Amino acid sequence: MKFSCAVIAGLLLGAGLTGQASAENDRSGAKDSLPSWNHGPARKAVVEFVERVTREGGSDYVPPAERIAVFDNDGTLWSEQPMYVQLAFVLDRIAAMSPEHPEWKDKQPFKAVLERDIRTVAASGKKGLVELLMATHAGLTTEEFERVAGEWIATARHPKTGRPYTEMVYQPMLELLAYLRASGFKTYIVSGGGIEFMRPWAEKTYGIPPEQVIGSSIRTRFEVQDGRPVILRLPEVDFIDDKEGKPVAINRFIGRRPLAAFGNSDGDFQMLQWTTAGSGPRLGLFVHHDDGEREVAYDRESHIGQLNRGLDEADRHGWVVLSMKRDWKQVFPVQKP
Amino acid sequence: MKFSCAVIAGLLLGAGLTGQASAENDRSGAKDSLPSWNHGPARKAVVEFVERVTREGGSDYVPPAERIAVFDNDGTLWSEQPMYVQLAFVLDRIAAMSPEHPEWKDKQPFKAVLERDIRTVAASGKKGLVELLMATHAGLTTEEFERVAGEWIATARHPKTGRPYTEMVYQPMLELLAYLRASGFKTYIVSGGGIEFMRPWAEKTYGIPPEQVIGSSIRTRFEVQDGRPVILRLPEVDFIDDKEGKPVAINRFIGRRPLAAFGNSDGDFQMLQWTTAGSGPRLGLFVHHDDGEREVAYDRESHIGQLNRGLDEADRHGWVVLSMKRDWKQVFPVQKP
Repeated sequence: MKFSCAVIAGLLLGAGLTGQASAENDRSGAKDSLPSWNHGPARKAVVEFVERVTREGGSDYVPPAERIAVFDNDGTLWSEQPMYVQLAFVLDRIAAMSPEHPEWKDKQPFKAVLERDIRTVAASGKKGLVELLMATHAGLTTEEFERVAGEWIATARHPKTGRPYTEMVYQPMLELLAYLRASGFKTYIVSGGGIEFMRPWAEKTYGIPPEQVIGSSIRTRFEVQDGRPVILRLPEVDFIDDKEGKPVAINRFIGRRPLAAFGNSDGDFQMLQWTTAGSGPRLGLFVHHDDGEREVAYDRESHIGQLNRGLDEADRHGWVVLSMKRDWKQVFPVQKP
Repeated sequence: MKFSCAVIAGLLLGAGLTGQASAENDRSGAKDSLPSWNHGPARKAVVEFVERVTREGGSDYVPPAERIAVFDNDGTLWSEQPMYVQLAFVLDRIAAMSPEHPEWKDKQPFKAVLERDIRTVAASGKKGLVELLMATHAGLTTEEFERVAGEWIATARHPKTGRPYTEMVYQPMLELLAYLRASGFKTYIVSGGGIEFMRPWAEKTYGIPPEQVIGSSIRTRFEVQDGRPVILRLPEVDFIDDKEGKPVAINRFIGRRPLAAFGNSDGDFQMLQWTTAGSGPRLGLFVHHDDGEREVAYDRESHIGQLNRGLDEADRHGWVVLSMKRDWKQVFPVQKP
């Protein structure tokens, strides 16, 4: 009777994978929870870790309140190729705002954005990108920005697949998030992306509520406008949640050291370092984008999501390097008809 | 049979109050949850609010994920008289550190602290206080500071009552926190106090985990010392979580507007304003320190926890002004023998 639910679910869903997973011998419920994961070293490391920290009476048991898992977003939970999704938002937003900004037609980097001349946009460097970010992300109240970001994500499409960005998420990671939560973990996003860009859709997409989304931020100011209190978004960077910023933000927002950290680039290096330097069992994992057929193969030389130091030092730190090609049965969720 | 647990608990504890509470006709479980509250307007407002937002199928129903309640700490959850507890920590810490700082004997405001000349300390103003704060709160790793703060709170005693500060908490507020959590709320501290000063004891004292404690902060930096990653506390103010800062911090950390906000001073005004400007039922409540017998009576003229504008404008905003004298049966927890 022990497998009846899984078997029934398998029959109902016609999911051939369920039977295969049931044949395995995990002690936990992972056999039903991670159907898109191949039985390889990455899955094994994850399941063994979860079983160690959740086994009551075991020497490595960790109470549920202390079970924190942190996830990078771009390239770890969803696709960051051919460009960060938030950059696509910025470009669309510039186009949408351009009628009210006739001066942009002659002003870089706005001109290049309107002409979709991505090479010139890129050449404007960090200074240009910050200008674009401030033009599109500041000057609104938090409520207005939430609406704008929410409306954009609902209608925008990935340039290659034509799917909504919220379907360009990694199916195995959705399963991992759910498996960890079912095992008593609190799951957090700790991303270089904008905190208020992610919050409007993270709950629906990942099951991660706004208060568990941490990201980069711009300054805000509380003020009362015509008797109505608002929080205004100011054109000034507050915090960059990348590299050394990630452990700083984890400490600030969570105040506990995570048990597990998942990333895909050297921007996540310090987050894994901070996480796995804690006592007791810890898990650090890099998603390695080595699947050029089902996704995009990139690592050491990439301008987006470069993974270099992470590959060199993973062994030394005992971190798992997950191969998308080897470890995942399926990359993206099955497309809805 | 419905009241059997409450009755048994009442008999075991010899708590005469239980019987009285059971006679009341609250629809919710509040009759058993708020034994230290008198049946007055404050209790009524709280219970009616909770019943409105939790009644399934009701027009004011709010799903549990959106039930956020925020609490100021000093003067709202625990006593802030005769001085903020964190200031007592600073003064003790200066004394403890003084053997390694012989120069403090001749340097203000340190000299005044060592001589317990509180008037001169106060006269050093904001600049002097920041100097004391940086000397005691910075220069350590986060782990070291957590240990220092945790050890202090475990041994320090309130100057008037001789009780540990963690027993100088308001019993009715402990009951309110538990009642709200039992009603599906997530309870947060949003305090002007230091975020890392509160976290080591907030969970044990209030049942509020570190990730739900928001406060003022100093800057930190991640670095690797002899191969070991640490987060260093720097002598630089990062964020003051007071007045206009409170809604800004709520937006940053939680990303949702709370349903209910509890404070006691004008430092909480904007937090109540932001909270109760949301749509649907909202609750704003000021704890008014009007009980000179059981605690300390202070409001408009006080240097600590001044409540002035809050008293003037509460009616206009529909906020509850709780009278400690009228609304609370008991102020502090029964002292352990």
